[in-house]
Amino acid sequence: MVFNRAITKKLVTAAVLSTVVVGSFAGLNQDSAKAEDESASKVKNVIFLIGDGMGPSTIAAHRYMIDDPSTKEMEGSEFDKYLVGMQTTYPDDPSQNITDSASAATAMSSGYKTYNNAIGMDNDKKIYKTVLEQAKENGKATGLVATSEITHATPASYGAHDESRKNMDALADDYYDELINGEHKIDVLLGGGASNFIPEAGRKKDNRNLAEEFVNDGYSFVTNKEELLNDTNGQILGLFANGGLPKAIDRDETIPSLEDMTKAALDRLSQDEDGFFLMIEGSQIDWAEHDNDIVATMSEMAEFERAFKMAIDFAEQDGETLVVTTADHATGGLTLGANTKAVANGDYNFHVGPIKAFNKTPDYISAEIFATGAEADVEAIMKKYIDTDFYSQITAEEIQAVKDAAAANNGTEIDNAIEAIVNEHSVTGWTTGGHTGEEVPVYAYGPESSRFKGLLDNTDQAKIIFDLFEKAK
Amino acid sequence: MVFNRAITKKLVTAAVLSTVVVGSFAGLNQDSAKAEDESASKVKNVIFLIGDGMGPSTIAAHRYMIDDPSTKEMEGSEFDKYLVGMQTTYPDDPSQNITDSASAATAMSSGYKTYNNAIGMDNDKKIYKTVLEQAKENGKATGLVATSEITHATPASYGAHDESRKNMDALADDYYDELINGEHKIDVLLGGGASNFIPEAGRKKDNRNLAEEFVNDGYSFVTNKEELLNDTNGQILGLFANGGLPKAIDRDETIPSLEDMTKAALDRLSQDEDGFFLMIEGSQIDWAEHDNDIVATMSEMAEFERAFKMAIDFAEQDGETLVVTTADHATGGLTLGANTKAVANGDYNFHVGPIKAFNKTPDYISAEIFATGAEADVEAIMKKYIDTDFYSQITAEEIQAVKDAAAANNGTEIDNAIEAIVNEHSVTGWTTGGHTGEEVPVYAYGPESSRFKGLLDNTDQAKIIFDLFEKAK
Repeated sequence: MVFNRAITKKLVTAAVLSTVVVGSFAGLNQDSAKAEDESASKVKNVIFLIGDGMGPSTIAAHRYMIDDPSTKEMEGSEFDKYLVGMQTTYPDDPSQNITDSASAATAMSSGYKTYNNAIGMDNDKKIYKTVLEQAKENGKATGLVATSEITHATPASYGAHDESRKNMDALADDYYDELINGEHKIDVLLGGGASNFIPEAGRKKDNRNLAEEFVNDGYSFVTNKEELLNDTNGQILGLFANGGLPKAIDRDETIPSLEDMTKAALDRLSQDEDGFFLMIEGSQIDWAEHDNDIVATMSEMAEFERAFKMAIDFAEQDGETLVVTTADHATGGLTLGANTKAVANGDYNFHVGPIKAFNKTPDYISAEIFATGAEADVEAIMKKYIDTDFYSQITAEEIQAVKDAAAANNGTEIDNAIEAIVNEHSVTGWTTGGHTGEEVPVYAYGPESSRFKGLLDNTDQAKIIFDLFEKAK
Repeated sequence: MVFNRAITKKLVTAAVLSTVVVGSFAGLNQDSAKAEDESASKVKNVIFLIGDGMGPSTIAAHRYMIDDPSTKEMEGSEFDKYLVGMQTTYPDDPSQNITDSASAATAMSSGYKTYNNAIGMDNDKKIYKTVLEQAKENGKATGLVATSEITHATPASYGAHDESRKNMDALADDYYDELINGEHKIDVLLGGGASNFIPEAGRKKDNRNLAEEFVNDGYSFVTNKEELLNDTNGQILGLFANGGLPKAIDRDETIPSLEDMTKAALDRLSQDEDGFFLMIEGSQIDWAEHDNDIVATMSEMAEFERAFKMAIDFAEQDGETLVVTTADHATGGLTLGANTKAVANGDYNFHVGPIKAFNKTPDYISAEIFATGAEADVEAIMKKYIDTDFYSQITAEEIQAVKDAAAANNGTEIDNAIEAIVNEHSVTGWTTGGHTGEEVPVYAYGPESSRFKGLLDNTDQAKIIFDLFEKAK
């Protein structure tokens, strides 16, 4: 379905946003910035990319994945040449010292640390302006792109305010209701999460149909790739799944990729002569890592890299666009190398072959086995999605574990048994289904990119961008 | 014992060192270097510090350890303000793609990747000149300081050449036998490993007493802290244990700290008007991580930070000293946060209290329990070394596991049971007893420090230093 009606703007009173004193953030990294022999042009546009859960090991695993084994050197990823430093990610939570995505994204969007679960507010429930909101105040176009629900913690922290990330219906309301200068604050919203916008898709809170409301105010509303590609409206809401999108390698042709959504966002936002702010999230790197699934993690990293490359290409052409890329935290305790018999023998390896052998994620394969029921031909289904060469290396015990889980009709255990196979053969280690506390890499390109170098704190991301927006006025 | 005799230089034919074409390395990071507004003074001295196994999580864990919990912000470590980037660490090994310390240190010392196990040579057994050897060729003073055997893989890769790191007697021979311009190539050698130098300490290979030979050539030879502090000779061999030194928190007063050794090295090397090259290794961060022992890992990190601070303080005073600090690889799959019941409840924490509660390492405590025998009073011994507050939180089951291991006279299991207690309560995760493949942080200070920024490969460390030495001629 495509709605694309004339603008009949609703005048909704915006929630009051505390005005942060932008000046109090100034000064950060300025000395070193002055020393750089780089373009001193003002920053017109900012593209901020977040690889959710993209810790140092995730980046490294991706580099091993794309390495050409016929050369001695690792060719490196698109990210590598833009590394400028790292950032700390700890929250300001009364009982936790490792961050969640809400707290981390609030720090990066507003410059204020907060408790895990908070969206755009601090421990005292004080609401802070985000860099996206500042961009809109300054007359810029704005956008959020994600492969999760577009109301999930990371994008929500740029465009909404709530005491809990779990209130995704309310976060969707914020996107519509919180106006800036009488306008909706986000011009382009692309991702998953229809169930938080539309009653028929599952919205439980009330009978509001936010998609209709946005359309009534002039937005397009699209729900598949074809509609997205055919739309030309400057403001758009695109929701391509009820929840998160399928993983990149599990998607069919009807669902746009992160690149497709990034291109759609850039095509629109770049039309604004005042510039734009765009946040793009590779949301499900983190989800895959929570599941300790290296196949899905690498699928999502590859897609995120393609979106990053598209942002860099745009910025290279444009010359006034700053691209910053980082992670909110690391997830899963992922390591290249793990405690197998091989390591006991001093054999240090991370084998990408078993990962590349999968053409669907373990989640996808296990769902098909589970859906078929206890009588499923487990081997036949697995062979559809796992390359023959690698399949022949899987032990009888490993296959039996999948069969046992299938016979027990236990979907989670089917998934775990398949993941155990690829983790074991690739020598991938995991310590947790949660997050971990190490600092994460920061990449930057374009004017003022040197402001992001060295060891930053996640709050510095917002502080620097506020300062650049102030200077560009 | 202290030997300190007059110089009676032996003339030993140096092993032939292939001369690398230093020029072929030039150009690296030069454009960005030019752009920096930093002192353009020549690099007279280089202090290169290696935290063996100091991956991103090790650095982060240390930062949590030193954090003042009464403030909202993490104060940060001495390293933090000098972060300039990261480096990749993969080897050039026919069957392994995660590095060991020998391969990594050879890359950093010579600029050439090689197989795991190799000391200062490549897969074809071709020997390459190291930056230490280049420094000596250029008339500079040189030193190696480590808390492992001074012939262990990392220091050996700067001052020796062998097809295997295991040949530590032969590596010690290289230190003595391989002359540069008729002189011993390393002026200051401080660390452990007497058993590779002296028959009475355990050297098995032959009857050579390298300590005597060094003394005959004018070196001092010292074996404890007092002797080290009282010595004033410019050239010195200090071996403070037969193997590696005890961990920092396990040491008695007779054994110098890494700071003591660093100071002794700087006092001597800084007398050379041509400058110096000094490699300092925090060797046992890695050893502690191999053992999955967070108490010892943090003990070694704290000591390494103190040595780093000493190097920075020297460089700040001196003005012509470049300090570079990095790791050879990460070890153990250490993560802050792990798969405990707490994480399942969404409780994200890394608790430093249980780590700080130990005043000796689990190795030390378990050795005492083991030495006492099956009838050891396990609780009495543990209480001597573990703070009362934390001890009261240890469960009966956890203590019983230590008692069971003690009753079985199993030293390794006693150690593992104690480590399991601190890992569980601190929420520390480990995936392996081996190394892992993520990139590691790089810190730099002083003239030309900007040459080290961004994402480097470990070979770049040598390439840049060779280039700086060439320019400083």
